[in-house]
Amino acid sequence: MIYLDNAATSFPKPQSVYDEILNCMKNYAANPGRSSHDMAIKAEMKIMETREEISNLFNISNPLSVIFTSNATESLNIAIKGLDKKGAHFISTTIEHNSVLRPLNSISRKGGEVTLLGVNKEGYIDIKSLKKYIKKNTRAIIVNHASNVLGTIQNIKEIGSITKEEGIIFIVDASQSAGVIPIDVVRDNIDILAFPGHKGLFGPQGTGGIYIKEGIDIKSYTEGGTGSQSNLISQPKFLPDRFESGTRNTPGIVGLCEGIKFIKKIGINNIRKHESMLVEYLIEELEKMPQVTIYGGNNYKDRAAVVSINIDGVDSADVGYLLNEKGIAVRTGYHCAPLIHPIIRTVNKGTVRISPGYFNTIEDIDELIKTLIEIAKKD
Amino acid sequence: MIYLDNAATSFPKPQSVYDEILNCMKNYAANPGRSSHDMAIKAEMKIMETREEISNLFNISNPLSVIFTSNATESLNIAIKGLDKKGAHFISTTIEHNSVLRPLNSISRKGGEVTLLGVNKEGYIDIKSLKKYIKKNTRAIIVNHASNVLGTIQNIKEIGSITKEEGIIFIVDASQSAGVIPIDVVRDNIDILAFPGHKGLFGPQGTGGIYIKEGIDIKSYTEGGTGSQSNLISQPKFLPDRFESGTRNTPGIVGLCEGIKFIKKIGINNIRKHESMLVEYLIEELEKMPQVTIYGGNNYKDRAAVVSINIDGVDSADVGYLLNEKGIAVRTGYHCAPLIHPIIRTVNKGTVRISPGYFNTIEDIDELIKTLIEIAKKD
Repeated sequence: MIYLDNAATSFPKPQSVYDEILNCMKNYAANPGRSSHDMAIKAEMKIMETREEISNLFNISNPLSVIFTSNATESLNIAIKGLDKKGAHFISTTIEHNSVLRPLNSISRKGGEVTLLGVNKEGYIDIKSLKKYIKKNTRAIIVNHASNVLGTIQNIKEIGSITKEEGIIFIVDASQSAGVIPIDVVRDNIDILAFPGHKGLFGPQGTGGIYIKEGIDIKSYTEGGTGSQSNLISQPKFLPDRFESGTRNTPGIVGLCEGIKFIKKIGINNIRKHESMLVEYLIEELEKMPQVTIYGGNNYKDRAAVVSINIDGVDSADVGYLLNEKGIAVRTGYHCAPLIHPIIRTVNKGTVRISPGYFNTIEDIDELIKTLIEIAKKD
Repeated sequence: MIYLDNAATSFPKPQSVYDEILNCMKNYAANPGRSSHDMAIKAEMKIMETREEISNLFNISNPLSVIFTSNATESLNIAIKGLDKKGAHFISTTIEHNSVLRPLNSISRKGGEVTLLGVNKEGYIDIKSLKKYIKKNTRAIIVNHASNVLGTIQNIKEIGSITKEEGIIFIVDASQSAGVIPIDVVRDNIDILAFPGHKGLFGPQGTGGIYIKEGIDIKSYTEGGTGSQSNLISQPKFLPDRFESGTRNTPGIVGLCEGIKFIKKIGINNIRKHESMLVEYLIEELEKMPQVTIYGGNNYKDRAAVVSINIDGVDSADVGYLLNEKGIAVRTGYHCAPLIHPIIRTVNKGTVRISPGYFNTIEDIDELIKTLIEIAKKD
């Protein structure tokens, strides 16, 4: 199968990821942080090593500020629900994923105040107007770094300088960018960074994380055994324990560690370059097809490796079906980002999303284009 | 290493678990329920197969009532926090794990009403007195099926008949029993069953689940993309989607599937018989050592494969350290169950917990006993 659905989850993973997961499961998958025997200590040390790798990647000074979760969605719920309090105001955008919109919608339904900034049809928010939406009670702004529908990359550095100046908490959803686009929590003034482990970071599904800057007070989320303060019925206040209750996904986390080491070995800029090259070629070829609408414009430089299209007269689901018949995997529909569709005028049809990854080749794109041409002809 | 820490996480897993996880990661680890290409469909079908295996094991009629989580702790948080509402009263016990006590403590601190039933020094609650604690506003009772400290097995069938009669919700924490002691949600009148995937069910770490009986209304927990109703910013109300937001741990879940198939192949009663035989032998041998205190009594028939002890004059942590030096893995300390320690008089010392599993042998126990005798002599 030609896998072009990397925005959903990256596939395949580097061989070292498979190898270490298997090694862990067979040799040291004890419960980390619980017991003090060699296997449990090895497991805990590998988890700590992963925290350090993540910290290096994002320029986080204290690895204990990195918390493991099961996916970016859990991370975003921890951040948003943990910061919510009576009278708080949240700002976000209409290009967000449901992992942000649904928690915010819950807050809003309980009487909380939420402002969603609009985006233009290329998916950009108007950063210059941001300040005027910030109020006295604004607690945080949540911004999607790279869109899973349009690939639009927001200028988080510019947003971060505003949030710093205004003294509000800056939450970045790095679901589509972590591991592909350089992120520096210091340079970008990021207070909270939510990221999946199984996309750009090449870890397995079931992994994700959240960085919480020291000093930010967030309510506990899932509470329970942490191995620490085991004799107390209150949740520890310190990180990462406050948010890591219950047995962690040790094999998954050690797989993630290898994924990040792979990124370091190849170089994040080389990964980005390869993906940009594929996207540039893809857009060039798509532009030759008069029946194709490319959403989010034809900018390939300032774009994550996500290209949403439609073919005139063919339902997006049918395009997906026909591509699958030829062994090509893409995603079709709304991509869990409902509010962008009115803006790009795809409310009743969704889009066909093509998301190449580091392991794709020009030949994969050629095969895709060839098949899309056949589909467009059939109509 | 002789691994006797199965109450923390089972080790090793059946070979088929490793094999299928690797097969999944290498061949079909797309994002289930998101895209409609072959790999994503295969992933979703394997997840559905796992729901069915779990349903068969626990006599659950509708597999869609089974929700995947990352561990039993998350399951218990979903249940407890999801049922909490103004004026609600919860009943639980002093033998619970922190995965129950900490969420209840949070409820209590916010003004909620919580009653914890005492247990005797064998760890049993007095079921006959249960009714007198049930009040008009009692919403649910949460009971630890098998204790992770003493191995005590509560009579959930008897409790279930009372909760049914009284019309309150019965939540069972099956962290130490799922996969080892037969559970039947119909016979036992269980409304909500929380279970880990990585202990008795032989799945990998990072897996767990919760069964929620149809008709029980629980608030959403983690909200976000579900692949379903992707065009709506409110969380779907139906199961399992209501509680399965974000990318699931596909490789973990397919590993869990193989774990449950292994149980089916061996027979849960044969697994139980093997573990009971090991525990019987272990207790018999421990009873020959005058320096050893066995907590929870010497009953081995009505006990999960968990035996907590102390050696006179040797700190529990030191016992653990010395056992580890001889290549034997146990857990020492409080085992995240703080309220049982005053009852068994181990507040300042904790216990040495020995928890054999299906893959342990009589020889493992012999080696343990031999080493414990050496440790006791040294003192």
